Amino acid sequence: MDKDKTIFFNKIRPLRDEIDRIDSEILSLLARRQAQVEQVVSLKKAHKMPVYHPAREEDLISRLRAQAVGARVDPDFMEDLYRVILRQSRLKQTRKMELKSIRPDAKVLVVGGAGQMGSLFAGLFIRSGYEVRILDRNDWDDARALCKDVDLVLISVPIEKTGEVINTLSPMISPGTILADLTSVKQGPLADMCRAHKGPVMGLHPLFGPTSDSLDKQIVVICPGRDEESCLWLKDQMGIWGAVIVEASAEEHDQIMEIVQALRHFATFCFGDFLYQRQIPLERTLEFSSPIYRLELGMVGRLFAQDPNLYAEIIFATPERRQLLREYVDSFGRHLDMLDRNDKTEFIKQFNRLANWFGPFSEQAMRESTFIINKLIERF
Amino acid sequence: MDKDKTIFFNKIRPLRDEIDRIDSEILSLLARRQAQVEQVVSLKKAHKMPVYHPAREEDLISRLRAQAVGARVDPDFMEDLYRVILRQSRLKQTRKMELKSIRPDAKVLVVGGAGQMGSLFAGLFIRSGYEVRILDRNDWDDARALCKDVDLVLISVPIEKTGEVINTLSPMISPGTILADLTSVKQGPLADMCRAHKGPVMGLHPLFGPTSDSLDKQIVVICPGRDEESCLWLKDQMGIWGAVIVEASAEEHDQIMEIVQALRHFATFCFGDFLYQRQIPLERTLEFSSPIYRLELGMVGRLFAQDPNLYAEIIFATPERRQLLREYVDSFGRHLDMLDRNDKTEFIKQFNRLANWFGPFSEQAMRESTFIINKLIERF
Repeated sequence: MDKDKTIFFNKIRPLRDEIDRIDSEILSLLARRQAQVEQVVSLKKAHKMPVYHPAREEDLISRLRAQAVGARVDPDFMEDLYRVILRQSRLKQTRKMELKSIRPDAKVLVVGGAGQMGSLFAGLFIRSGYEVRILDRNDWDDARALCKDVDLVLISVPIEKTGEVINTLSPMISPGTILADLTSVKQGPLADMCRAHKGPVMGLHPLFGPTSDSLDKQIVVICPGRDEESCLWLKDQMGIWGAVIVEASAEEHDQIMEIVQALRHFATFCFGDFLYQRQIPLERTLEFSSPIYRLELGMVGRLFAQDPNLYAEIIFATPERRQLLREYVDSFGRHLDMLDRNDKTEFIKQFNRLANWFGPFSEQAMRESTFIINKLIERF
Repeated sequence: MDKDKTIFFNKIRPLRDEIDRIDSEILSLLARRQAQVEQVVSLKKAHKMPVYHPAREEDLISRLRAQAVGARVDPDFMEDLYRVILRQSRLKQTRKMELKSIRPDAKVLVVGGAGQMGSLFAGLFIRSGYEVRILDRNDWDDARALCKDVDLVLISVPIEKTGEVINTLSPMISPGTILADLTSVKQGPLADMCRAHKGPVMGLHPLFGPTSDSLDKQIVVICPGRDEESCLWLKDQMGIWGAVIVEASAEEHDQIMEIVQALRHFATFCFGDFLYQRQIPLERTLEFSSPIYRLELGMVGRLFAQDPNLYAEIIFATPERRQLLREYVDSFGRHLDMLDRNDKTEFIKQFNRLANWFGPFSEQAMRESTFIINKLIERF
């Protein structure tokens, strides 16, 4: 090492040591803060006060911004930082508060409760104090006993088993029981449930993977089947767990899912397959990549870290879906001619038509993805 | 106020006061940290050391994660927090360092300097104290005067003009001048520059849109043309501006860009076109959307908020690209059979083969995109 470098490293070491000391102090303050917040939560629980207090959060942010200016620290930076801290404290709080139950006396049977989505819901019901029973593949001998006196039967089994499970269980449950399912298509199962069971029926589709451990801000689609009023407590309970409820007919749900799930996953699958066929050196392309490419390739890679059966179910769910995907495949042929003729003018014409159709959504998407890109730059 | 509430507020007040005190302490530590970082920067400047030190950052994050576990603080939360702190400190550092010039006496001519990318570079050179001249479309009468005694000619004009500009300008510049371009394809322009100019030549491709106002952590690909040593100051200058430099031959660059840019944008274009052909109600699908769908649709929408000419240039750049895209279109036909036969088994077989090929990247993509999804939930 040359002399200048040695001097540099000797001078920089004490500065870096001091930074490390400061970081340790910040960490112990955060731990202390967390302990205080936990006491606040216990107090709130004891006095049945709501957890999340948006006004206090905004108030805190405003005060910290003002203090930051005084300390010559960038107020935007201070706000960013405290948004992270407050979110963490909010998450800790909601996890603790989730306990509140709308129908404390109700009994819930989760069919397929050992699977990922089933056990997520079973866990939520348990934490809210419901009596929860699980019926999994080895429990069919006890099915009748498990069904006795339950207020809700929630079916969470693979799509191809749903019809059979509905038919087997329905005769065992009383007419007052809510029959509900979590299948990702809704027309078939909802019709099956309404046919087999004479009581309240509700189709649910939680729009998130089973890797989530909370419903906080997650979307759950509800397709009413029969006797909505009797199902109200279930809907409200999911609201308390933090879910965003979207209502739709089973038909509309299935049409939209053709696009939101089947088409999208199929398109991603085909793109990934083309990269594989061409044996593209992914690692090297990432070295050349802007954050947005990294993100887009990540969306493709992400698919293949997940369960192929789940995607096979989604993509091949119904003949209508397979027809849509065939049309998608065919639609690519339309663009060959433009490529053959090297026709930039035609491309720009089509592009402008699409830009016009996407309309204000494009601008919004640009803003949102720019926000995301900045987060990515921050992180990676 | 009822009695219970009064008790509650009396108990919660001291806890909240303590949280406020902790927050003030955190703020003074952040201010102290900032002061230390400023000293580090001055030292780095004095010793001509690079600002950004990725290894030290990752090292710090790892240590803080370990310490967090010890203090019973969530390590992911600690990492999130320090990503915000480190980015702030990096921004402050680069803003200070940007001024530094590697060749304070050098004169730079930016051709197309009134365009977006041209003016970004012109601005950076100006802020670093270089003498900057702009040659835009109305300045051709003065071209010879503008070229006189310049040390660098940087060409930033649309791809179809690049060849002509190179040929027109080269006879006006002295053999010691660096000739460089910012075109998004590199084989053609680099060959043109090497043919027309006898001095140092370097191809550059900044991998980001002209909406960025800084090179901080942005990737710039460098394709050496001739006399790399004379071009070294230009490379170092971009490093000081915060750019991440990736070196490649023009051939490798173009091959990788076929995938990273042309294929990706074309695939997005085709997907958007299919949504349009089917007149999908975008707004309603968004109500049903998990954050990841919102993000993916956002990636499509984002394309159409941008300049069609830019994308036409990228997609139709070379015959090789158009051939690749034709092959992509053809590759879709491969999947028809699987859909016709409703062959889930074949789908799962192919899926597993792809999962295997994507390998560890999938897991990483899953982690990264989960991080992004959480940011999205936080924000929107």
